[in-house]
Amino acid sequence: MRYKLIISYDGTNYCGFQKQKNPNTVQEILENALCKVLKSNVSLVASGRTDAGVSAIEQVCHMDYDNAIDNKKFLGYANSILPSDIRILDIDMIDNGFHARYSAKRKTYEYLFYVGKTHIPVYDNIASNIGYNVNLEDMKRACKEFLGEHDFSAFCASNTNVKDMTRTIYAIDIINVEDQLYKLVVTGNGFLYNMVRIIMGTLIEVGIGKKSYMDIAEIIKSKDRNKAGKTAEAKGLYLKKVEY
Amino acid sequence: MRYKLIISYDGTNYCGFQKQKNPNTVQEILENALCKVLKSNVSLVASGRTDAGVSAIEQVCHMDYDNAIDNKKFLGYANSILPSDIRILDIDMIDNGFHARYSAKRKTYEYLFYVGKTHIPVYDNIASNIGYNVNLEDMKRACKEFLGEHDFSAFCASNTNVKDMTRTIYAIDIINVEDQLYKLVVTGNGFLYNMVRIIMGTLIEVGIGKKSYMDIAEIIKSKDRNKAGKTAEAKGLYLKKVEY
Repeated sequence: MRYKLIISYDGTNYCGFQKQKNPNTVQEILENALCKVLKSNVSLVASGRTDAGVSAIEQVCHMDYDNAIDNKKFLGYANSILPSDIRILDIDMIDNGFHARYSAKRKTYEYLFYVGKTHIPVYDNIASNIGYNVNLEDMKRACKEFLGEHDFSAFCASNTNVKDMTRTIYAIDIINVEDQLYKLVVTGNGFLYNMVRIIMGTLIEVGIGKKSYMDIAEIIKSKDRNKAGKTAEAKGLYLKKVEY
Repeated sequence: MRYKLIISYDGTNYCGFQKQKNPNTVQEILENALCKVLKSNVSLVASGRTDAGVSAIEQVCHMDYDNAIDNKKFLGYANSILPSDIRILDIDMIDNGFHARYSAKRKTYEYLFYVGKTHIPVYDNIASNIGYNVNLEDMKRACKEFLGEHDFSAFCASNTNVKDMTRTIYAIDIINVEDQLYKLVVTGNGFLYNMVRIIMGTLIEVGIGKKSYMDIAEIIKSKDRNKAGKTAEAKGLYLKKVEY
C-alpha cells in the first residue's frame, strides 16, 4: 500500500533533505523514526530534495508499507520521537499510481529577504539581508521575464545530471511582507538544482544595479550559468507547497 | 549631551531587556559594548523593559555622553563587538528634554501566532501555536472591546508597583500573515507589565470558546487579574515600534 505524507521542517541544522553519507539529513532522521513507529524499514520518496539549510512548510513524500496505519496514533507517536525541527503534518493512504516526485504538478517556493543597512536579529532568523540600496521596482520588473516556459540551463547549478532543463514558471513576484521584509514567491512545474537561489541571486544583482531587468531574457537565452547571478544563500528559502 | 539609540534584538536567549542580578540581559550586554566603544560607563534608559524571551524589531533607548559620536564609525564598531542577536540600528544626538520612556507617545506590539493540529517547525521559531480549533472571528470581535481608555488592572501581572493602571489602546486587530499564520497588532500609549501577553491569553480563551467576546468589557471592568485569561507565552511577542 502506498501512503502520502506531508512533512514540515526547519532545515537550518540539516545537510539537506536527501540521504547521503552524512547521516544528518531530514530523510535519514525521518526514516529512522518511521522504522521505530512501523517496526519495518521504509524508504521515503520526496517531491524533490531541498538543499542544506533550506526549510519546508509543506514537503510531500510517499512510502510503501503493507499494513493499515491509524492516522492519529501514527502522527502522535512519530512526532513524539522526531526532533522538534521535523514534523509529520499528515499521512493518508493513496493509490499506487501516486508518485511524490513524478505526480507533482506545481511547486511553490518562497525566498524571504529584507533590506536594511544594519542586520535586524529577528529577521536574520528567517530571512536573508540583501543590503539597503536596492531598487525593488526593477527587481519586480525582472521577475516578469522569468514567466513561462524556458530552458533554464543558465539558472541551474553545474553539478547536475538532469538532461531536460526546460521548466515552466506560472507565477513569480516580490511581495512586501511588512516594513523592510519581502518575499519572492515563485510557482512552477518544477525547479532545477539551485534554480530558485540562482534566480534570487540574479534578482539581487538587478536590485543593486549590477544587472538590468532587461538583461534577464538574454541571460535565459544564453543558457550559460556564468551569465546569471550568484547563488543566493540558503537561509530565506522555503519550499511552501507541492500540488498534485 | 543626550543620544537616542534604536536597538533591535532577538530576546530568545536573554533574561529580558532590563539589567538585574543575572547578567544575561540585553541592557547589560549593550552597556558593556558601549563601555568598550565609548571608553566610558554609560547607562541606557529604554522606552520600557521587555520580558525574558521577548524580541524587539525597534526598541528605543537614550543615554548621556559628553562627546561627539560619529554615527557610522560608532555603529560599525559597536555592532562588530555585539553578539549577532543584538544590533544598534541607529544613534543620533537629541535634545536633553527627550526621555526614551516618558516622551514615548505610542507603542506597537505584535504577537505572532499560528493555528494548527501539529507544530510547524518553521513557524515555531517565530510564533506561538495556539491549537487548531479556534474561532478567529470571535477573537477579532473581542479585540474591539479593548479599544479606548480603560483601567487595565485585570490585564496586569500582580508583581508590579505601578499605581495608575489606566492606558489607552488606539488600535488592535488580528491580521492574517499567510495561511495559518496570524498576528495580533496592538498600539497604545503604554502597556502594563505583561499586558499584551494577558490580552493575548484572554483572546486565546475566546478563540477556544472558554470565554465569549462579550465577556471582555466585564473583565476589564472587574479590574480583577483572575477574571482575565492566562499570560500567553513570551515566544511570539515583538516590540515593533515606539513613537515620540
